Amino acid sequence: MQIQNYRQVSGKEEIPGVVMRVIVGPDEGAPNFVMRIFEIQPQSSTPYHSHNWEHEVFILSGKGIIRGTETERTFHEGDAIFVAPDEHHCFTNTGNSLLRLICVIPLIDKKLPTTPSAKQSQ
Amino acid sequence: MQIQNYRQVSGKEEIPGVVMRVIVGPDEGAPNFVMRIFEIQPQSSTPYHSHNWEHEVFILSGKGIIRGTETERTFHEGDAIFVAPDEHHCFTNTGNSLLRLICVIPLIDKKLPTTPSAKQSQ
Repeated sequence: MQIQNYRQVSGKEEIPGVVMRVIVGPDEGAPNFVMRIFEIQPQSSTPYHSHNWEHEVFILSGKGIIRGTETERTFHEGDAIFVAPDEHHCFTNTGNSLLRLICVIPLIDKKLPTTPSAKQSQ
Repeated sequence: MQIQNYRQVSGKEEIPGVVMRVIVGPDEGAPNFVMRIFEIQPQSSTPYHSHNWEHEVFILSGKGIIRGTETERTFHEGDAIFVAPDEHHCFTNTGNSLLRLICVIPLIDKKLPTTPSAKQSQ
């Protein structure tokens, strides 16, 4: 077994205001799926995009909205969110404190999947 | 997308002192893996067992120990734990408050895997 506190894992700020940490993944020997933590600053958002894999999300703290093609829904601590493959989505922190969430994705060919940049938009 | 707060999901107490809720799984259309929450009372434990699939765990609150074949390690809030396939394991709440953790497992043939009872022991 392997144990590490997420706060000790190096984060990557791919978008201003959004830091992602891979807390269980290929480096730990994960064979099928990857657990990540996102920390999103107030008023910051993940990209509005889609991809052909799912998200299974758990809200650790904070609150926000998730925007889809035709819907926009609020969420807060303790919510579990399923985003189906090919469903457009974007998480925005609408609160005054850090939004922290777990987001699990499948491994594809034993690697972290890469979102096609052509599908990304802010 | 689908959103539900874990507190609104029916729990199942399979072992005294241990309640499990499936918060994202086949009922939500999950194709590859299942997100569950376990709530473990002080001094209670999950079974000491093994199975041929992995666990990816995140400690939401509380503290405890995880016992393996040759190791026993402590954990607390914010820890991410990887338990490899076929690795024996058992989570015990050693604190005075509820131990809450997320545990993600793969779907096998699109179903929740069932731990072989012959491998279970308290």
